[in-house]
Amino acid sequence: MTNNSKFQPEWINEAPKKGSYRSIFKYGDPLGFKHPNDMLFQELKEKFKLTDEDFVEKESTGNEIIDIKIESKLSVSQIDKFVEICSKENVSSIEYDRLKYSSGKTVEETMKLRRKELGLITDLVVHPRNKVEISKIVKYCNEEKIPIYVYGGGSSVNFGFYTEKGGITLVLSTHLNKIVKFNELNQTVTVEAGMMGPAFEEALNKAKELYGAKYKFTCGHFPQSFEYSSVGGWFITLGSGQQSSYYGDAGDLVLGVEMISPSGDIITKEYPATATGPKILDIIKGSEGIFGIIVELTWKVYRYKPENRQYFGFIFPNWDAAVNASREISQGEFGMPAVFRISDPEETHHGLKLYGIENTIYDKIMKMRGFKPMERCLFLGSADGDKQFAKNIKSKVKKICKKHGAMNLTSFPVKKWEPGRYKDPYLREDLMDYGIVIDTLETGVSWDSLHEVYQQCRAFVKSRPDTICLTHASHFYAQGTNLYFIFIIKEKDTQAYLKFQEGLLGTIQKSGGSLSHHHGVGRMISKWMPEHLGESQMNVLRALKKHFDPNNIMNPGKQLIGR
Amino acid sequence: MTNNSKFQPEWINEAPKKGSYRSIFKYGDPLGFKHPNDMLFQELKEKFKLTDEDFVEKESTGNEIIDIKIESKLSVSQIDKFVEICSKENVSSIEYDRLKYSSGKTVEETMKLRRKELGLITDLVVHPRNKVEISKIVKYCNEEKIPIYVYGGGSSVNFGFYTEKGGITLVLSTHLNKIVKFNELNQTVTVEAGMMGPAFEEALNKAKELYGAKYKFTCGHFPQSFEYSSVGGWFITLGSGQQSSYYGDAGDLVLGVEMISPSGDIITKEYPATATGPKILDIIKGSEGIFGIIVELTWKVYRYKPENRQYFGFIFPNWDAAVNASREISQGEFGMPAVFRISDPEETHHGLKLYGIENTIYDKIMKMRGFKPMERCLFLGSADGDKQFAKNIKSKVKKICKKHGAMNLTSFPVKKWEPGRYKDPYLREDLMDYGIVIDTLETGVSWDSLHEVYQQCRAFVKSRPDTICLTHASHFYAQGTNLYFIFIIKEKDTQAYLKFQEGLLGTIQKSGGSLSHHHGVGRMISKWMPEHLGESQMNVLRALKKHFDPNNIMNPGKQLIGR
Repeated sequence: MTNNSKFQPEWINEAPKKGSYRSIFKYGDPLGFKHPNDMLFQELKEKFKLTDEDFVEKESTGNEIIDIKIESKLSVSQIDKFVEICSKENVSSIEYDRLKYSSGKTVEETMKLRRKELGLITDLVVHPRNKVEISKIVKYCNEEKIPIYVYGGGSSVNFGFYTEKGGITLVLSTHLNKIVKFNELNQTVTVEAGMMGPAFEEALNKAKELYGAKYKFTCGHFPQSFEYSSVGGWFITLGSGQQSSYYGDAGDLVLGVEMISPSGDIITKEYPATATGPKILDIIKGSEGIFGIIVELTWKVYRYKPENRQYFGFIFPNWDAAVNASREISQGEFGMPAVFRISDPEETHHGLKLYGIENTIYDKIMKMRGFKPMERCLFLGSADGDKQFAKNIKSKVKKICKKHGAMNLTSFPVKKWEPGRYKDPYLREDLMDYGIVIDTLETGVSWDSLHEVYQQCRAFVKSRPDTICLTHASHFYAQGTNLYFIFIIKEKDTQAYLKFQEGLLGTIQKSGGSLSHHHGVGRMISKWMPEHLGESQMNVLRALKKHFDPNNIMNPGKQLIGR
Repeated sequence: MTNNSKFQPEWINEAPKKGSYRSIFKYGDPLGFKHPNDMLFQELKEKFKLTDEDFVEKESTGNEIIDIKIESKLSVSQIDKFVEICSKENVSSIEYDRLKYSSGKTVEETMKLRRKELGLITDLVVHPRNKVEISKIVKYCNEEKIPIYVYGGGSSVNFGFYTEKGGITLVLSTHLNKIVKFNELNQTVTVEAGMMGPAFEEALNKAKELYGAKYKFTCGHFPQSFEYSSVGGWFITLGSGQQSSYYGDAGDLVLGVEMISPSGDIITKEYPATATGPKILDIIKGSEGIFGIIVELTWKVYRYKPENRQYFGFIFPNWDAAVNASREISQGEFGMPAVFRISDPEETHHGLKLYGIENTIYDKIMKMRGFKPMERCLFLGSADGDKQFAKNIKSKVKKICKKHGAMNLTSFPVKKWEPGRYKDPYLREDLMDYGIVIDTLETGVSWDSLHEVYQQCRAFVKSRPDTICLTHASHFYAQGTNLYFIFIIKEKDTQAYLKFQEGLLGTIQKSGGSLSHHHGVGRMISKWMPEHLGESQMNVLRALKKHFDPNNIMNPGKQLIGR
């Protein structure tokens, strides 16, 4: 093995070729990169028993121009109808567009696209200009039984809008991307579903200038995909942001929606609370496009006060201590931290490298005090809200962490983490260029099942030789948290990879975790749903589906298909 | 008029006669009373232009023994079946029992029962001993198409379990009233649906002794009916407690349920969060027995730390200032007060009398400083949770109230209010003994509709000559609050009263309020539902009803009947 050499692979540093497969599967900004740093590179070589030579020649990079001919199954008159509704420039039957807007960000898709293995693709890409056009489209498609898929930001990691049997794909981010109404009195903003994270947040931060507001505001929702996901997508998949422990999950952050479905339009009213029977808003939450299309949402906003933010970081002697302290914080009734994240020993090992803490004076003191590598656990956090409130959280957190044997690392690690927090997905392309897969699965757990799920999942991942498995918990509640598994394996074979993925999903399910804490269901997880929820709960979802969408045209082949 | 005399009516001070109508409609403890104090008595006389003489002779008090014969529509073999399932002593076809368990606490029922006007009554009262028996009952009733009503605490103010067409009434509080599992790690308690408030709270307060817990706990849910309502009832009607601004509404406080329905049993899993499609738990919330019977609930508990409680009270120059300060508190992101209540000028006027503040040194200073009667508004509050957290809330509240022109009244008024907070319903019987009706309606409002709803509803109530209308807001959210109207009118005619009530409900609906913030729907409000939610939302509820209960045996004649 050639370790610690000065050799560095030639990570791709250019935008994918226009019209290439890579331009479709590459995450985020075409010119956005986060190459593995030297420490990670050395570790990968060591773990996978590779040498520098293995990083000379790349696997298929998918940088070839797409040159395919796939007939659209729609008739000319059908296509004409969509042109009539949305105008010519908003309709495309070009294969590149159809493949692009049928593709999400699963590892499976990336593996296949690199080798020009195509799945099904949509028959037509349509960019509706407003909700009236969407109404017409839904009505027409229902009559003609044409399936409809909705593309928001395209960041799905579970085949959330995968084309099952042709049909059309509506791209909402092209035109439905504006703020409809800002209401400072109610602290809400009504927004079109296709608005992307950064534009949404920027408008709220600039509420004073844009809306004559008294305060600046924030949406409070910052998932890792923030830059490349849409507000509608956050909501309908039940996403969680990296500050959800304070701000709430996306489902909690929405006060009202407008949904267009084959069985009619739903506009829910915006009461802070109401006791008028089961809430249709709640019934829609998490439906991932199988009931209808969310066209507008009313989002609860918070005051934007970054100047109040309190940062903190600690190292714990072990995972148990980190979990116990986190539980005590979550149940302490002094308010919740916004960023709130504990890493298990293996992730901590990486984090300390990544955040440049390894071999610093901090590291020396830690070791001196007995915080051992591959046992010690990192805690990162920050508190938002009113200044005194945030300061009190910090002071309580400090006390609790100390009680559980932690050492204070100050704000150093979280400030190292914060600027790069949307960048990790960029690693994926670099690694896969050399046949290494990095992927994630995650689950919601109650406190009393956390350790069982953690141990079983980790045991499963590690049962495959030479795997890296980094785990953290990063969304906290009084009743539990989530577990987020990042695994890195050397695998070029798609089927072998899928078998591994399926095994981990099965382990999550069997060990008592939820199938998904905030990644949604999509096509990928749907097969586990009947076992997970049980037939009587599945039947409720099926009854709702039948009601909203009797012809099964709305995002068919997802949540409810089962095995 | 004879004001300020020493005369006091002979308020009834004895338990209702055993077997009497009064024993059915009287609220709460048979020996529980809260007679109008002299100030209220004087005011009633003044308002309704009455003299002491009008309080000499009572209206019909309903203290007559029930002597009715109403044939049960069930066949002997059907009754035998219920006896077979639940045993003889848990089944009753006696008219008194059937009337009792068909009666809630609406003013309409009370007015009618006083005059022996009977509505429909259930055919059989059944006290199931466990969920297995309930399963058998639901299965049998579904086969035989026998309607099932569920009686929890019986405190419904909207005909929530009124018998529409005979059938059986299950009383859950008789046997299903125990804690099934206490889980300190998860901070949850699993409880049978029929457990009543005080027993539930007491068990949690005594968690150390009873369950060997490290801490004491509280359920956090204290509606006015706390002593006479059940945990299952709180949840299924979407109730709110008097400390909901901090602890959350009942719907938020439940993590999992077990429901038995004609289409199968539902047991939801207890994840703190999950993104596996629309949540069946959410779909059940607020269904008020029309889908199935909640037999067990897992409730999120909080630490019980009364020693941390911070009390506060203020007087505002006017309603606008009180509302503005409340909004600033609710949006201030420093945590929420638990008790959080502002009274409008008319309620303040009463409150100051009731809490013994009128004519004290406080009152003199208030008047000196320009806080005028019938303009000034009272604010009562307390903060729970961690001590520093609660203290910070108090200090922020103080600052904001001061900024909005309020004067600090210290903890005096809230400590006067607290001990009597479950007692107000007892006033009703005394007043109605002399033909005076006291009743309430309430609504959820966004901040931007609050004033419109307030003004229109008050104008409607006041359009009837000689009415007292006390209004408060007592459940706060960043996006709005509730308005709670207490009205006192002189009215003996049931139909005239109902016309008035209907007029106010219509005004709530038209002015932009929710039909109910936390009283639920029941039969009373159902007629407004289609107009309120719109047909497409009603159709979703109807589809769910059809799925869960295709034979319409579960609490028929409620939420979905419309006009």
